[in-house]
Amino acid sequence: MAPAGTKKSILDRLNSGEVVIGDGGFVFALEKRGYVKAGPWTPEAAVEHPEAVRQLHREFLRAGSNVMQTFTFYASDDKLENRGNYVAEKISGRKVNEAACDIAREVAGEGDALVAGGVSQTPSYLSCKSESEVKTIFKKQLEVFTSKNVDFLIAEYFEHVEEAEWAVQVLKESGKPVAATLCIGPTGDLNGVSPGDCAVRLGKAGADIVGVNCHFDPMTCLKTVKLMKEGLEAAKMKVHLMIQPLAYHTPDCGHQGFIDLPEFPFALEPRVLSRWDVHKYAREAYNLGVRYIGGCCGFEPYHIRAIAEELAPERGFLPQASEKHGSWGSGLDMHTKPWVRARARKEYWEKLSPASGRPFCPSMSHPDSWGVTKGHTDLLQQKEATSEEQLKQLFTKQKEKCGV
Amino acid sequence: MAPAGTKKSILDRLNSGEVVIGDGGFVFALEKRGYVKAGPWTPEAAVEHPEAVRQLHREFLRAGSNVMQTFTFYASDDKLENRGNYVAEKISGRKVNEAACDIAREVAGEGDALVAGGVSQTPSYLSCKSESEVKTIFKKQLEVFTSKNVDFLIAEYFEHVEEAEWAVQVLKESGKPVAATLCIGPTGDLNGVSPGDCAVRLGKAGADIVGVNCHFDPMTCLKTVKLMKEGLEAAKMKVHLMIQPLAYHTPDCGHQGFIDLPEFPFALEPRVLSRWDVHKYAREAYNLGVRYIGGCCGFEPYHIRAIAEELAPERGFLPQASEKHGSWGSGLDMHTKPWVRARARKEYWEKLSPASGRPFCPSMSHPDSWGVTKGHTDLLQQKEATSEEQLKQLFTKQKEKCGV
Amino acid sequence: MAPAGTKKSILDRLNSGEVVIGDGGFVFALEKRGYVKAGPWTPEAAVEHPEAVRQLHREFLRAGSNVMQTFTFYASDDKLENRGNYVAEKISGRKVNEAACDIAREVAGEGDALVAGGVSQTPSYLSCKSESEVKTIFKKQLEVFTSKNVDFLIAEYFEHVEEAEWAVQVLKESGKPVAATLCIGPTGDLNGVSPGDCAVRLGKAGADIVGVNCHFDPMTCLKTVKLMKEGLEAAKMKVHLMIQPLAYHTPDCGHQGFIDLPEFPFALEPRVLSRWDVHKYAREAYNLGVRYIGGCCGFEPYHIRAIAEELAPERGFLPQASEKHGSWGSGLDMHTKPWVRARARKEYWEKLSPASGRPFCPSMSHPDSWGVTKGHTDLLQQKEATSEEQLKQLFTKQKEKCGV
Amino acid sequence: MAPAGTKKSILDRLNSGEVVIGDGGFVFALEKRGYVKAGPWTPEAAVEHPEAVRQLHREFLRAGSNVMQTFTFYASDDKLENRGNYVAEKISGRKVNEAACDIAREVAGEGDALVAGGVSQTPSYLSCKSESEVKTIFKKQLEVFTSKNVDFLIAEYFEHVEEAEWAVQVLKESGKPVAATLCIGPTGDLNGVSPGDCAVRLGKAGADIVGVNCHFDPMTCLKTVKLMKEGLEAAKMKVHLMIQPLAYHTPDCGHQGFIDLPEFPFALEPRVLSRWDVHKYAREAYNLGVRYIGGCCGFEPYHIRAIAEELAPERGFLPQASEKHGSWGSGLDMHTKPWVRARARKEYWEKLSPASGRPFCPSMSHPDSWGVTKGHTDLLQQKEATSEEQLKQLFTKQKEKCGV
Repeated sequence: MAPAGTKKSILDRLNSGEVVIGDGGFVFALEKRGYVKAGPWTPEAAVEHPEAVRQLHREFLRAGSNVMQTFTFYASDDKLENRGNYVAEKISGRKVNEAACDIAREVAGEGDALVAGGVSQTPSYLSCKSESEVKTIFKKQLEVFTSKNVDFLIAEYFEHVEEAEWAVQVLKESGKPVAATLCIGPTGDLNGVSPGDCAVRLGKAGADIVGVNCHFDPMTCLKTVKLMKEGLEAAKMKVHLMIQPLAYHTPDCGHQGFIDLPEFPFALEPRVLSRWDVHKYAREAYNLGVRYIGGCCGFEPYHIRAIAEELAPERGFLPQASEKHGSWGSGLDMHTKPWVRARARKEYWEKLSPASGRPFCPSMSHPDSWGVTKGHTDLLQQKEATSEEQLKQLFTKQKEKCGV
Repeated sequence: MAPAGTKKSILDRLNSGEVVIGDGGFVFALEKRGYVKAGPWTPEAAVEHPEAVRQLHREFLRAGSNVMQTFTFYASDDKLENRGNYVAEKISGRKVNEAACDIAREVAGEGDALVAGGVSQTPSYLSCKSESEVKTIFKKQLEVFTSKNVDFLIAEYFEHVEEAEWAVQVLKESGKPVAATLCIGPTGDLNGVSPGDCAVRLGKAGADIVGVNCHFDPMTCLKTVKLMKEGLEAAKMKVHLMIQPLAYHTPDCGHQGFIDLPEFPFALEPRVLSRWDVHKYAREAYNLGVRYIGGCCGFEPYHIRAIAEELAPERGFLPQASEKHGSWGSGLDMHTKPWVRARARKEYWEKLSPASGRPFCPSMSHPDSWGVTKGHTDLLQQKEATSEEQLKQLFTKQKEKCGV
Repeated sequence: MAPAGTKKSILDRLNSGEVVIGDGGFVFALEKRGYVKAGPWTPEAAVEHPEAVRQLHREFLRAGSNVMQTFTFYASDDKLENRGNYVAEKISGRKVNEAACDIAREVAGEGDALVAGGVSQTPSYLSCKSESEVKTIFKKQLEVFTSKNVDFLIAEYFEHVEEAEWAVQVLKESGKPVAATLCIGPTGDLNGVSPGDCAVRLGKAGADIVGVNCHFDPMTCLKTVKLMKEGLEAAKMKVHLMIQPLAYHTPDCGHQGFIDLPEFPFALEPRVLSRWDVHKYAREAYNLGVRYIGGCCGFEPYHIRAIAEELAPERGFLPQASEKHGSWGSGLDMHTKPWVRARARKEYWEKLSPASGRPFCPSMSHPDSWGVTKGHTDLLQQKEATSEEQLKQLFTKQKEKCGV
Repeated sequence: MAPAGTKKSILDRLNSGEVVIGDGGFVFALEKRGYVKAGPWTPEAAVEHPEAVRQLHREFLRAGSNVMQTFTFYASDDKLENRGNYVAEKISGRKVNEAACDIAREVAGEGDALVAGGVSQTPSYLSCKSESEVKTIFKKQLEVFTSKNVDFLIAEYFEHVEEAEWAVQVLKESGKPVAATLCIGPTGDLNGVSPGDCAVRLGKAGADIVGVNCHFDPMTCLKTVKLMKEGLEAAKMKVHLMIQPLAYHTPDCGHQGFIDLPEFPFALEPRVLSRWDVHKYAREAYNLGVRYIGGCCGFEPYHIRAIAEELAPERGFLPQASEKHGSWGSGLDMHTKPWVRARARKEYWEKLSPASGRPFCPSMSHPDSWGVTKGHTDLLQQKEATSEEQLKQLFTKQKEKCGV
């Protein structure tokens, strides 16, 4: 196993303008492989089935990932207690976090990847626990990350910038670089704080890298990161940008993202990005100035490889898994049928509008949460018209719930 | 490693009315994971990356598969020579077949699964080699399967019943049970032999189990197997039925299946079956009297699990991977949002028509091969009207090509 | 008013190979204009609002129609009594039929069109009245047509070939040419008689022209007429062919046509044919050898004009209304925006796949009648698989109902 | 012919809170009927085929329209000269305008409708003629309206508020009430003036009624009128609101409206509103406080009837054409098939998502103008992100063109 610290650090990479490729979505990929339960989404598989977690890490590494995020999503003690009661009781949070670090380190050592310890939103915050109580939760995970000497830290999947700030403040105590990503869209966090303000607050809390992850498709995430970038520029702050969107097309989702779509989480198949969609995303992310580019739920190894292949000209090399992939479909050039051979080129795949094979299904859905209040009006019209008002409403509810 | 022969054999299972669950699609799943090259689709990964192949076997086993098919698709010497030139030359066909057998046996030993050695269509047949030349190809693979003592044999993915008959005749020499599946639709094989006649011919050649695999979606495959069943009944032959369809919706494909769809093979995402689509498929296959039920390209472990969960009442048990899956979405019953909790029930998922999130894409495509000859007329009308005539044309071409 | 008989007769036209263009759909067009009630669909407007009926006739004449069908659809006494109770009682069936003849004759006299008196299916037949009772109904309408000296007669919109035969037999007594069209699809009439057999029976009953109208889209109707043609050829009968389909895309409808689609009759808008769809239809009908080409429900004047424009090369002239229509969109060539000017050409419109602007709607529906018996299985698969069995079922029901 | 002035005036109606129902789209309806040429879209039919224009007026009157707009769209001399060269030269602009007034007055006299003389945008303005030159154009039309003593005046279909102001200033000289509607969306006029500012400027120019017409679907137009209302309230101006949208679903169109959609103008069929879509629109317009509610291109008589039926509870009566329409499909309650009878109710039609019958077509299109500059990025994302920048660009081009 390669020791920590012998590789170029995350900040050295970003400072020198390198592209850092993140990994993909562990919980969704492992749910499909049979190791994670949808609903709780907790990562006890790191202990129960380390070979499955290791294999997925390896696939992302081969696909070009420079970061092995520890499989510690929702691995805070309060979450594991809360939801994980179908799991053998003996598996403590500490054990899960430790196992996840060990696996990530082992695979990172097989290539040019760093290990990032990750924390995410907590039930404690949602149930209005105090700042110190919430921070205590993060500290327990950080103890493991410190003892396992991860290369840097990521606070991700926060819907409230306030909780993310608390996480960043805790993680910064380690002295390691810290990245922070929110699962928000262009309308801002669930308290109505704009992406620009969120980015500035995270930067001020100590984050070296800020951005978004999960909840929205690449194009929506790019829009959000663009607003973050503008906010940071206006505040004259120099912070690196990061993006890890869904691998699902979600033009129809509302303020809270794909969770509200009727297809979440068991019928999202028709929305999955093709590798060519990922090429577009990677190019646009690069053009926007983002240099930490990865994926979240739905991103499979081949999606990550598509990022690496799109940015191969800039990076100067292809990922290992490209030995099993002809660029832009060129592997089809030996096919026996002339009309299939004709697909062995960029123009073909770039322009294709893929059919769903589902003529009885629509192309967009009304998010469940909107349906409740809105009835028949067309969603496209509603989204903007009501987002402000809905934001206020959500904010009020949140406050009421917490008795603030 | 568990020795062969200590488990209930495939024919004992089927004869006693048990449901045998097949595995899913190795080449497509491993392509997405970075170990198989689309285009050649050859299985050298069994030698190069055994841990990746083993892991996929394990996931299918956990999901409920009773059969570990050796990862020997397109592993005939003529195919490997033909297309596999991007692979290190040292990997002989024998090595690939042996490695695949070893991995399959190892994982089968971890649960209640049998090992099936598999052969598939050959370039030799397509280039009009003689019967004895083609049979020699199959014999080389069979030697390995015999020496590794697989439990039974599968001849699969044949577009011409004649080649499948040759394969069956070779495989029968081993004395082991033989299954044979064609990748044909309701219009029959590429020489215009009807599904009913194909089934009878395969049975006469010695196959103990006949059916279809690949090329078409579950509903189309069910229709084809129904025609096979009717043919066998008319011929008063008692042969078991087997089905392993695509996990893609392909209502729009023509005589040659999904290969002609413009989305093949790199933009099929919107067509992927949800687990609920698989429930329906499994139920209908069972109702039709098919007892060997599996999947082909596109079938991931969670699709196989859906077969096992749908047929759990008949089989009396759930697969191991169901420990990480609430039946019919029940894992959502603890979600914080009431509208997501409302999805924790069968009626919800059964009725959902999932959106694609792709409003700029159609729901059906014109197969490339039809486009060439047909122009504007609506495909749905064309399919039937011209299939006969096209069949003849294809048949003629084939004959000409072979100088018959 | 021009006298009857001074124009080339319908049979002279067809015998000499001329294209005869029919008119479009009166009941649907007048429903949208406010003069026909959906549900009963009766034509009392000929008496109540003759100017509205006259105007629609004129528009079809301008568009190129060579036939003015009297607006006497459902104008049999049994139908008018049955359903027309919202209409002033004084309007007798005779008055409606007379008024419709007068208007048709008046407008026909303004151009090169013939007047065709029309009868259609009766409630008497559906309620199992005897042959002589049903024929009496047709005779009452025929009396008016004879006294008004129409140029020829059309028996249309019959779901049972038997009733159509009776109608033809009555109409033939007039000595005038008779056309007969069924509203059936490729699976035949509601008693399971095939299109080929239907055509032969109608020809034997005395029809000079046979074909289909209504219930299905152009491509489906073409398929049905092709089967009729083959039946007639097999029987060595020489009868002219006629086609008057819906102007709605209905790839998803079942045996009984568009009435079973959930959108019938008040939400069919997204299915309406564009003029370019009509160009294709007209060309294919011509290529099939059909020379009486018109439309039914949904066909507006501009759809009829499209038939006339597509076949202008064969006919040697354009219709009057083409003075207000640039061929294949050429009227756009003076548009100020370059991208709109780029649409002034055939290739553009021919290739366009028009969007619905309805991302929340599917592209196909399950017919209500199928839903009842079939549940979840995909319609496309069902249609063929079950049509035979459903036919028998329908036939049985019909027999039971009539106590046969 | 009924004299002007004997009916309650437009302002008395609006001041007393009455709902005034406008008419529908003449140019598109008459194009389909064969009397208007797409491209030039000029109204010479008022002279050439008065019976056709009269009939359409009558249908709108029967459907519930309280306003007969003179068919004088694009009937300014500069437009008629410019484009109308396919029309007999003898038809002067004066003759067209006079004939249109006579027809409108005749039909208005048959019911409770007022006559509104209409002017629209001019080629003179687009080619940068001076204010006095443009005003001269409007004055020529106004002379006719004054001599024919129309009840009030409408300046409609202006893309630049400046030209609309000039029109209003001219029309106000008549002393008659003046309405002014722009064909703009929520992003404002083609010079980037916001809807709120547009409304205020039109009010200041003298308009008694302001709003939007054409170019966008009902939901988009409602959004624009809402912004106008907010602008007027902020300016503490009391002006009546008016709305006359397209009868096409256009969620995908950009800043310049439906003209940029690839389907314009010859393949818009799949986008046509159903009558139930119009019910929703009418209700939302009413709820927004708009009391002059009508339609533009695509609105057929049955669409106008749907406005009148939806607002019948508020108005206390149904339109004449409802004698041929069962409310919410109730006319189907006597159908022979139980599943069709089941459609005779509001809940059915309100919830139906109608299928297009076009599985090979998408649900949304990229506007041509965007395609030019934007390439692959998803439209939904682009629209907002670039509208500002595009506005500037368009504004600059316009300035350059005029040498300002």
